[in-house]
Amino acid sequence: MSKGKKVTQGLTITREQDASEWFTQIIQKAELIEYSPVSGCYILRPRSFFIWEEIKNFLDKKFKEDGVKNAYFPLFIPESLLQKESSHVEGFAPEVAWVEHGGNTKLKERLAVRPTSETIMYDAYGKWVRSYKDLPIRLNQWCNVVRWEFKHCTPFLRSREFLWQEGHTAFAEQKDAMNETHTILKFYEQTFKELLAIPVLAGRKSEKEKFAGADYTLSLESFFPNGKAIQGCTSHHLGQNFSRKKAFNISFTNNEGKKEHVWQNSWGFSTRTIGVVIMMHSDDKGLVLPPKIAQEQVVIIPILFDKTKTQVMKEVDAIEEKLAKNHRVHVDDRDKYSPGWKFNEWETKGTPLRIEIGPRDLEKGEVVITRRDTNNKKAVKIKDIEVEVAKQLDAMHDNLYKKANKHLKESVVEVTTLAEAKKEINKEKKMVFAPWCALPECEEHFKEETGGAKSLNAPFKQPKMKADQKCFVCKEKAQKYFYLGKSY
Amino acid sequence: MSKGKKVTQGLTITREQDASEWFTQIIQKAELIEYSPVSGCYILRPRSFFIWEEIKNFLDKKFKEDGVKNAYFPLFIPESLLQKESSHVEGFAPEVAWVEHGGNTKLKERLAVRPTSETIMYDAYGKWVRSYKDLPIRLNQWCNVVRWEFKHCTPFLRSREFLWQEGHTAFAEQKDAMNETHTILKFYEQTFKELLAIPVLAGRKSEKEKFAGADYTLSLESFFPNGKAIQGCTSHHLGQNFSRKKAFNISFTNNEGKKEHVWQNSWGFSTRTIGVVIMMHSDDKGLVLPPKIAQEQVVIIPILFDKTKTQVMKEVDAIEEKLAKNHRVHVDDRDKYSPGWKFNEWETKGTPLRIEIGPRDLEKGEVVITRRDTNNKKAVKIKDIEVEVAKQLDAMHDNLYKKANKHLKESVVEVTTLAEAKKEINKEKKMVFAPWCALPECEEHFKEETGGAKSLNAPFKQPKMKADQKCFVCKEKAQKYFYLGKSY
Repeated sequence: MSKGKKVTQGLTITREQDASEWFTQIIQKAELIEYSPVSGCYILRPRSFFIWEEIKNFLDKKFKEDGVKNAYFPLFIPESLLQKESSHVEGFAPEVAWVEHGGNTKLKERLAVRPTSETIMYDAYGKWVRSYKDLPIRLNQWCNVVRWEFKHCTPFLRSREFLWQEGHTAFAEQKDAMNETHTILKFYEQTFKELLAIPVLAGRKSEKEKFAGADYTLSLESFFPNGKAIQGCTSHHLGQNFSRKKAFNISFTNNEGKKEHVWQNSWGFSTRTIGVVIMMHSDDKGLVLPPKIAQEQVVIIPILFDKTKTQVMKEVDAIEEKLAKNHRVHVDDRDKYSPGWKFNEWETKGTPLRIEIGPRDLEKGEVVITRRDTNNKKAVKIKDIEVEVAKQLDAMHDNLYKKANKHLKESVVEVTTLAEAKKEINKEKKMVFAPWCALPECEEHFKEETGGAKSLNAPFKQPKMKADQKCFVCKEKAQKYFYLGKSY
Repeated sequence: MSKGKKVTQGLTITREQDASEWFTQIIQKAELIEYSPVSGCYILRPRSFFIWEEIKNFLDKKFKEDGVKNAYFPLFIPESLLQKESSHVEGFAPEVAWVEHGGNTKLKERLAVRPTSETIMYDAYGKWVRSYKDLPIRLNQWCNVVRWEFKHCTPFLRSREFLWQEGHTAFAEQKDAMNETHTILKFYEQTFKELLAIPVLAGRKSEKEKFAGADYTLSLESFFPNGKAIQGCTSHHLGQNFSRKKAFNISFTNNEGKKEHVWQNSWGFSTRTIGVVIMMHSDDKGLVLPPKIAQEQVVIIPILFDKTKTQVMKEVDAIEEKLAKNHRVHVDDRDKYSPGWKFNEWETKGTPLRIEIGPRDLEKGEVVITRRDTNNKKAVKIKDIEVEVAKQLDAMHDNLYKKANKHLKESVVEVTTLAEAKKEINKEKKMVFAPWCALPECEEHFKEETGGAKSLNAPFKQPKMKADQKCFVCKEKAQKYFYLGKSY
């Protein structure tokens, strides 16, 4: 977007024609993203930051009600500390941004810009925990993290800096820690379903795909209309992998006077989700926003003529006041733009409901409401407007969810052979559900055979498996049913 | 704080004996701060992060009501971009943390970890602004910033990483920009007064002390009981210093078709303020928290004996339920600790009100309320408890403010000569109010003569000045009355 060149309204390309350019046009024309001079780092403009604030408010409340407290740990982690847990550091070292100078002074030790905060937080936990009475510790921070990706970056979905929350907890009993991983995943699932109108597959990741340093990783996975899956968020049980390391030594005296090590979790939800929302719901006219996260839920566009202007604006103001009690309402009364231009603009920006009010509508005591997702127009009596707007916003949320859920259900194909899997994933753009051995070598082989597909997760509720069921890839004994497919 | 060594309760030193050690003990024993492995970077524990969240909620609401929107800009600023405004970069370059590697790859250009975001934000503003219709732009971000200080770091007051909000705005008209610097300063003043119970001196900084790259800087200054001032926050008018630079070129076509450059402001409020609160109100028993930012406003401590335990706890629960409707209440019913131990702990942590409930109180239908700031105990009828708690919390806020304000007023001494100023500042631990030429060379001289004092600010409402009034230092013509003194 060069200086002086006004971006044309509306998309100039369809998703079908070029999904990548379609996404790029949406995030720019809906004013969600601006590119920055640092490759892979993006500016979250107010319209996307608003979505993040809504997500944050929703989740933060759930965390706090569950007893989690917020804190803030330093951005910088000394190189030696990051290396204290070997499988953890292996997962992150290739993409750490390193600070080597403060002003003109070379630092004695390089500092990592946090890719995640396990090590710096658990260093403190080691100081705080002495007795079972100090447990559990359940802290969360909302912050920025940096992972210097060398793959192609995409705003929201893969960026070198992103925002997230990271929860880090320590328990006396493993079962309490394990329970928490599920509690948190439930909060995440509610966020996707109730706030973002996105259906997800909840389950446990494979050994190969789990978090470096975790005993197990739970995840939510979603599936885009373009036939690619995406990991929504993760909740890790770290077991005693950190607490037993000498460098951390997070130990306590239990109520029988015996020394034990704590059981730990970490869990995170990031701005990547904003990208998931865009990809999931948007169409060839632009962004489609689930009502609960739309900065303007309702835009009112008066149709103004000199003779009836005063009268129409009076009614517009009255309607705005009524609706603003329960909804985020914006009146677009700019006089330099035609109604048609405005319709276009708010469509591109994804505003759920548009209300047109003109002199002829007023004569009939009506307004016209148009829904962004269906494009359905409906004449509504002004006296019914509050009820109708609430109803339509709810209906839009439900419709977005149902549509996405129908697509998700239709995208899962059960298979029992690698040949079937390859066909469904690569030709039909589906994901597969298959009995699998879940071994890392087999996953590697599957990835090669499919040109990059991987396991997503294994649902908690497993179908009954035959005693002699074979792995769909290697034909050894199958362990569990997994979802597998191409993924971002 | 080494592993295994339980920190003893209560302070072991008075402010008078050693103000620095007193501060260190408070922030550790009140569980506000933990030290991190990176020198100058501190962990904000939940009890201090709570204060930051309260400040954030208070200010964020005011900003939004005034039309400011939140956004997020990248952490990293390319070296070349940082250098685009020369006086700005001179102010920050010596304390920038530089990222030179991503993983094992040396970056083509060094990246600054943002010390402040003018340059990266205005680079985007230049793309967004074309017409007067695109103005004003009023964005804010809540984020972390890094300034690699080489002076002695102190938690909250001077740390290498801190949290803040930075507002950055652009207007078509200079007068609108200038008005905004005062509007924002008013919000900051309300935060200090209404939330933190801290009186402040509002005014304009001298040329030497203003922000690098600003036309002028407004500030709030406060004065600690130990005789040192501290700058609370700043609101800068940047004029066209950035917008006229070729690299930014933030220009627009006005409504007469003429090209103009925008007028800009930036303004910030940081976690330094938490340090100001601690220093201002605390005493030799520990932290004293203004009620509005206390995590627990009321702690209820039941006095339990086997025979009457059930009865007492029943009443405690009933009182908690009543008070929790309007206040943050905590019941400390831990049975491993004596009431005296608990009194001590909550005193150290700064909890505004303590309510003791024992069997003898119950017989009289009473409880005993103790206020943290005055240590006054009062027997209160249980039926009056809601009214009384609300009253006492308000009274405590007012008392903290009055006490601090009295000290502030008594600490200002009007002088007309350098000799008087030196005596008041260095011997009497006061600050001075004096007619001054406000020239940078004179300020330099004053600083040397006083062993480090500087100008704080010039109040907006100036006393009437004699036509031939001379500068109290250099005896040239005085320009304005300034506050001057030793400052953090």
